[in-house]
Amino acid sequence: MSSSDIFIGEVIGTAVLILLGGGVCAAVTFKKSKAFEAGWVAIALGWGFAVMTAAYISGPVSGAHLNPAVTVGIAIKDDDWSDVPLYFLGQILGAMIGAVLVWIAYYGQFLAHLTDREVVGGPGAQDLKAVEAQEKGAGPVLGVFSTGPEIRNTWQNLATEIIATIVLVLAILTQGLSDNGKGLGVIGALITAFVVVSIGLSLGGPTGYAINPVRDLGPRIVHALLPLPNKGGSDWSYAWIPVAGPLIGGAIAGGIYQLAFA
Amino acid sequence: MSSSDIFIGEVIGTAVLILLGGGVCAAVTFKKSKAFEAGWVAIALGWGFAVMTAAYISGPVSGAHLNPAVTVGIAIKDDDWSDVPLYFLGQILGAMIGAVLVWIAYYGQFLAHLTDREVVGGPGAQDLKAVEAQEKGAGPVLGVFSTGPEIRNTWQNLATEIIATIVLVLAILTQGLSDNGKGLGVIGALITAFVVVSIGLSLGGPTGYAINPVRDLGPRIVHALLPLPNKGGSDWSYAWIPVAGPLIGGAIAGGIYQLAFA
Amino acid sequence: MSSSDIFIGEVIGTAVLILLGGGVCAAVTFKKSKAFEAGWVAIALGWGFAVMTAAYISGPVSGAHLNPAVTVGIAIKDDDWSDVPLYFLGQILGAMIGAVLVWIAYYGQFLAHLTDREVVGGPGAQDLKAVEAQEKGAGPVLGVFSTGPEIRNTWQNLATEIIATIVLVLAILTQGLSDNGKGLGVIGALITAFVVVSIGLSLGGPTGYAINPVRDLGPRIVHALLPLPNKGGSDWSYAWIPVAGPLIGGAIAGGIYQLAFA
Amino acid sequence: MSSSDIFIGEVIGTAVLILLGGGVCAAVTFKKSKAFEAGWVAIALGWGFAVMTAAYISGPVSGAHLNPAVTVGIAIKDDDWSDVPLYFLGQILGAMIGAVLVWIAYYGQFLAHLTDREVVGGPGAQDLKAVEAQEKGAGPVLGVFSTGPEIRNTWQNLATEIIATIVLVLAILTQGLSDNGKGLGVIGALITAFVVVSIGLSLGGPTGYAINPVRDLGPRIVHALLPLPNKGGSDWSYAWIPVAGPLIGGAIAGGIYQLAFA
Repeated sequence: MSSSDIFIGEVIGTAVLILLGGGVCAAVTFKKSKAFEAGWVAIALGWGFAVMTAAYISGPVSGAHLNPAVTVGIAIKDDDWSDVPLYFLGQILGAMIGAVLVWIAYYGQFLAHLTDREVVGGPGAQDLKAVEAQEKGAGPVLGVFSTGPEIRNTWQNLATEIIATIVLVLAILTQGLSDNGKGLGVIGALITAFVVVSIGLSLGGPTGYAINPVRDLGPRIVHALLPLPNKGGSDWSYAWIPVAGPLIGGAIAGGIYQLAFA
Repeated sequence: MSSSDIFIGEVIGTAVLILLGGGVCAAVTFKKSKAFEAGWVAIALGWGFAVMTAAYISGPVSGAHLNPAVTVGIAIKDDDWSDVPLYFLGQILGAMIGAVLVWIAYYGQFLAHLTDREVVGGPGAQDLKAVEAQEKGAGPVLGVFSTGPEIRNTWQNLATEIIATIVLVLAILTQGLSDNGKGLGVIGALITAFVVVSIGLSLGGPTGYAINPVRDLGPRIVHALLPLPNKGGSDWSYAWIPVAGPLIGGAIAGGIYQLAFA
Repeated sequence: MSSSDIFIGEVIGTAVLILLGGGVCAAVTFKKSKAFEAGWVAIALGWGFAVMTAAYISGPVSGAHLNPAVTVGIAIKDDDWSDVPLYFLGQILGAMIGAVLVWIAYYGQFLAHLTDREVVGGPGAQDLKAVEAQEKGAGPVLGVFSTGPEIRNTWQNLATEIIATIVLVLAILTQGLSDNGKGLGVIGALITAFVVVSIGLSLGGPTGYAINPVRDLGPRIVHALLPLPNKGGSDWSYAWIPVAGPLIGGAIAGGIYQLAFA
Repeated sequence: MSSSDIFIGEVIGTAVLILLGGGVCAAVTFKKSKAFEAGWVAIALGWGFAVMTAAYISGPVSGAHLNPAVTVGIAIKDDDWSDVPLYFLGQILGAMIGAVLVWIAYYGQFLAHLTDREVVGGPGAQDLKAVEAQEKGAGPVLGVFSTGPEIRNTWQNLATEIIATIVLVLAILTQGLSDNGKGLGVIGALITAFVVVSIGLSLGGPTGYAINPVRDLGPRIVHALLPLPNKGGSDWSYAWIPVAGPLIGGAIAGGIYQLAFA
């Protein structure tokens, strides 16, 4: 693949991934959405099919890593790190574009939510609530962009992200074994979708399963930059965990692959 | 493909699409339905598998566009507009037939809903409610036929439909890349189903995701023509958005394909 | 295929179909079930994957019709009625076996439900309730075995079953076109599963989508024969609709195929 | 396959299976989980995709039995018992590792749940509740590890596990017929996932569908060993049913295969 194919494919693919993934978070979070309170099955299916759609669109162009943890796992497996920075660059840029597209698609919903007195408090309580939201460092609007833990515990949160990412990257790395060299193509995208649904249902409970550094960091940067009223803080103290955890998990998966499958 | 194959395939396929798609809307809307209040996951899966079933039935005959936005995207990709009017004609006719079939399949449910005092108001309130429904221009019965926004905002509503349709048409256009010239056939119909589920879950919240001009316009015409009591208005002031948005989105997807994938 | 393969395959396959399909009805109906009130999405997925599992097991043996409506559609398509009686015989026998297996698997649940005072009324009210159930001709226990309409209207109920079965059989008949003569095998079973999920979500609301004469008649016979306390009547006045509707629908689908696809 | 491939593949695969399967039980059980009360559809999809992911990862290495009932069924079909003990050993070890991983991933949730007064009672009531839980022999925390019946009835519980496992193993054994000798690979893993979803939705209601001896026994041993406060008893009196039932079911499926399909 040429450098421009890798870059363009990863930008488009990761933008689609975050548009659809962030989109389902917006869809179930906002009261003025037809999918309001559609539940965790909607979230898990939404993110799974987001990965499938993005992988399906960008797969023929860049191989559809869409995730630095996948890029790291593949680099360890193939012992080839030459294109890694280019993949990373496309991925973080795409993730930020995707988050902006979510904001456009749900523009009125964001505004209605953030200025709704039922949501942010009674008359005169808005500034106060915003302060509280900033102090708590996480709230429902940040949840449309980035992940946050149900119970804040650095080592558990990191462990959960590492374990979940090992499952993801191991499943992707073993694709090469399953296809007998014929190339999985569209079936691979479908299987990967259901692996992501599985991780969401089973391991998403504690931290919201970033399992992808740019899935969390890209939208978090956009949350910090967008001029949203009452948006609260961007919870930067937690931000390193969904970056470090998936990178560690991807590297461990690459190592397990080398030891047990190669 | 012959002209008659295109026409017959699109009529049958789009009729099946709208029968199943409108059907799931009816199924969750009406109290006298076993799927009453089955939720947004039911809607999203219902429309996704509606597309799959319709594509599966009509694919071998007409290629299963079933959507003017897809026809436009493919015309731009292939730079061949000769069959476009024929596709459009079959699609709008099929969509109207499908909407009539929904009305037949849920005939008693429509009547019970529209004449139920719990639904349309207390004794003597029926005419009043019908007037209100007409004034508001959208209600639950129109929702079985056509889409409507949660928050009325022309530019956001249009943007949401454009963005969602770009994802759909881009995924369909890149199928040709994924299949290495072998023809996706049934797998393509399955993947497209999950792309539609994804769009429904993630981008359906604000406008109900028409992403297909005839999916909205065909049933809206049927709503206007059917002799339903208390049915309210057909919300014609909104009707141009789910037509224009998907057509613009399909054209943009065709353009992105030409620039980034061809 | 040999006669014994057809018979054995259809018996085993239809037994698995009704075991899993009736099973999901039991699972959501009974309070002492872990899936109690799991909702319509569970029903629709449950029946869809029931068809897939049954088709997958019996496909290599008998071709996995599992449904007289499918057998009629294929007979019309191929203009060959020689094996039709044998298919019918295996299907009705398998359906009855499947219904008995549901009763065994949920034995305690059936008993707890039928003798539970919260379900059948206060002290002394049991006989009364049983009489009422018989008079109404349908209740939750019959619903584990057979279908029943939400609104009793002969012509609508028949029309809904016909329309839904046309979709099912048309999708199955066009498989031969999609596979370019390579045989769909397992993918065909998967697609058919999602077609059935689609029909359940979209067209199951009014009548509970028998779309298969033996799916309704076999378990209804078993309901009439099993020694269940307080079980109520078997609603024989409705029983002809889920037999006739699917047979008519299958025949119409065969005709549409001949006209439009052959 | 070499002995070390079988052992390593089954350990890794079964660990992933139980991590994801136990994970979804934890996800819906604990209040401090984003998937709290996500319902039975989440459970059924979660276990189905757990099987798919595990089969997908370990399939190329060990053939991905992941279940002694499957190993028994295949041994009967092939009349080759030489590797059976090795499979069993890898499976039970993997299941225990998987249960420990669930405990790590949900560490804070386990603690919060077990020391939450709303869960285990008011002030001073904790020891009492723990005693009660031990007496009852089963509670929500054990439910994250192992299965338990809704209605305790030895013969019905055993029958339900046998019936459900026959469906599972029969579907897996007939894969060899469906694939025309080409090897199902990833598609087989996908189909098996949906078979497991089907069994969960349709036959999981009475006993929680172990359908796999190590899926129940491995986590039960870990439950007995882990130093969890207020965890209650491990319900050893029930433990033989989800071991014996699936083994009997797998053997019967092997027998049916020999009689009807071979």
